Amino acid sequence: MDNIQLFEQIQHKKSFLCVGLDTDIQRIPHHLLEYQYQIFEFNRQIIDATANYTIAYKTNIAFYEVLGASGWINLEMTVNYIRAHYPEIFIIADAKRGDIGNTSKYYAKTFFETLNFDAITVSPYMGKDSVSPFLGFQDKWVILLALTSNSGSNDFQQIIDKKSNSRLFENIIRVSAGWSSKNNMMYVIGATHAEMLAGVRRIIPEHFLLIPGIGAQGGSLNDVAKYGFNKNCGLIVNSSRAIIYADGTVDFAKAAGIEAYKVQQEMEKLLKEYGLTTNN
Amino acid sequence: MDNIQLFEQIQHKKSFLCVGLDTDIQRIPHHLLEYQYQIFEFNRQIIDATANYTIAYKTNIAFYEVLGASGWINLEMTVNYIRAHYPEIFIIADAKRGDIGNTSKYYAKTFFETLNFDAITVSPYMGKDSVSPFLGFQDKWVILLALTSNSGSNDFQQIIDKKSNSRLFENIIRVSAGWSSKNNMMYVIGATHAEMLAGVRRIIPEHFLLIPGIGAQGGSLNDVAKYGFNKNCGLIVNSSRAIIYADGTVDFAKAAGIEAYKVQQEMEKLLKEYGLTTNN
Repeated sequence: MDNIQLFEQIQHKKSFLCVGLDTDIQRIPHHLLEYQYQIFEFNRQIIDATANYTIAYKTNIAFYEVLGASGWINLEMTVNYIRAHYPEIFIIADAKRGDIGNTSKYYAKTFFETLNFDAITVSPYMGKDSVSPFLGFQDKWVILLALTSNSGSNDFQQIIDKKSNSRLFENIIRVSAGWSSKNNMMYVIGATHAEMLAGVRRIIPEHFLLIPGIGAQGGSLNDVAKYGFNKNCGLIVNSSRAIIYADGTVDFAKAAGIEAYKVQQEMEKLLKEYGLTTNN
Repeated sequence: MDNIQLFEQIQHKKSFLCVGLDTDIQRIPHHLLEYQYQIFEFNRQIIDATANYTIAYKTNIAFYEVLGASGWINLEMTVNYIRAHYPEIFIIADAKRGDIGNTSKYYAKTFFETLNFDAITVSPYMGKDSVSPFLGFQDKWVILLALTSNSGSNDFQQIIDKKSNSRLFENIIRVSAGWSSKNNMMYVIGATHAEMLAGVRRIIPEHFLLIPGIGAQGGSLNDVAKYGFNKNCGLIVNSSRAIIYADGTVDFAKAAGIEAYKVQQEMEKLLKEYGLTTNN
C-alpha cells in the first residue's frame, strides 16, 4: 500500500484511527477461553466490529510472543483474516526491532514475508545499516521510533546533540529521512508530546506519522491534529486498550465498535475542520 | 545465575567465550534437512561439540522468528537442551527488545518464563520504564545495548550530549547503571570499538560486558582484553558465524568444536597473562 492509497482510505472512512490489537490473554472475556484460538477469536470479533471506523490495525508482538509458538499461530491467523476480509486496511507489526544488517534482514523477512504485514516499527538506535534491510521491500513500510509516548522518552530521546544543537529524536528524523522517502518511511511520535509535532513537521512536512498515546496514555486528539496534520492528513492515530477492553463481557466487541465509532466521529470533525475531506 | 557463578565458570573453563547460535536455515548442511527439527538438530550438534570451551550461548531471535511458529519450537528445544545437559552455561536471548512498560513486561515474561533464558539484550532508546520490567526477575539479566559493533553505531550512539559533554552511549551507561546493579545488568560494547572500552571501564569498572564483533566482524580479542578486563574478567566475548559455519559438510560440528577450542586457547592465554586464572 502506498501513501496515496492510505490518504484515499482516510478520506473514504473519514478516519485516521488505528486500533491496537494488544490482546492480553489475561484480559479477554472468559467465554472466549473455550475456543482453540482464543486470541484470534477475540481479535476477529474486534476487527469485525471496528473495521468500518479504522484504517489500520497494529499488533504489538509482545502479546503474541509471550504465548510461544501458539502466539505466532494466532498472530498469523489475525493478519490473514484482515487481509481476506478487509484488504484496504493497513497492518502494522509493532515489533520495535533493529539489529546488525545481516540480522535485520531476517526480521524484515519475518514480518513482510513469513507474516504479511504492511509495516513494522523499528528502533533507530543501531543506525542506518540496522534499518536499511527493512526498506528494500516493495510497498512495505518502516515506522521508525522517534519520540515515544512513555515517560522514559525523556531519558535519552531529548538529549541535545552538541553538533547540530537539536534533540536526539529530531536528529534521528533528519538523518534517517535521507535513507529513503515519504513513500516507505513513517515516524512514531507520542501524543503525549503533541506540542513537539510542530517542530517535527518543520523537518518532515510530508511524511506520515504514527501517533500512539491517546486513550489509556492520556494524549489529546485535538492537539495532535492541530500540530501534526499535513495536506494529506499525514497522521495515523493509535488507540489500543481504550477500545479493545471497553467491556469485559460477551458484548466486548459491540462495546469496542462503539468506542471506535466515537473516535472516528471526533476524527471526522477534525478532518472537516482542517479541510481534509473530499466533500467539504 | 549470578556474576560470581559466571566468574567461577570462566575460571573453570578458562574461557569467556559465548557461541552465537544464529542458525540460518539456508546455511545449515544439506544432510540436516531430513530432520523434523532441523535448526534444533544443527544447534544440538554444535552445542555438544563446543560446550567444553564456552561459558554462554546466545541465540539471535531473528533467525528463529523468520520460521514462524516452527522457529519458536526449535528455539524452545534449544534452550531446554542446554539447560538439561549443560546447566552451568549462561543462555542469552539476543532479542534487542524494549517497549512501553506495559508491553516490556510481556517481552520479559516471554524470554524469562515462557522460554527459560538467563538474559536478554534490550534497546535503551525508550528509557527507564522500558527497561525496568526486565529487571524484576530473580537471577535474570538485562544486557543493554550501548555501543554496537555495526557501522551504524557511528550514526547516533556517539552523538555528544551538550549537557554532560559525553557520548550518547556513555550517557546511557552512566544513567542506566543507576537503575539496577552489576548483579543483573550488563552492557553490549562492540569489539570493533575496543579502544573505547577503557572509557567504559571508567564509568562501570565492575559490570560484565557482552562483546560481539570478533570473528566475521573483525574485532581484536587482544584489544578487547587489554581495555575491557576487570578483576573478575568482566567480559563475555561472542563469536557466531566464524564458529558455527566453520564447515558446511557432515563434519560441521567437529569443525565448530575446533574453532571454539582455538578461541578458548587464546582466551586461556589472555586470562593467564592478566592474572585471572586460579592456578597462575
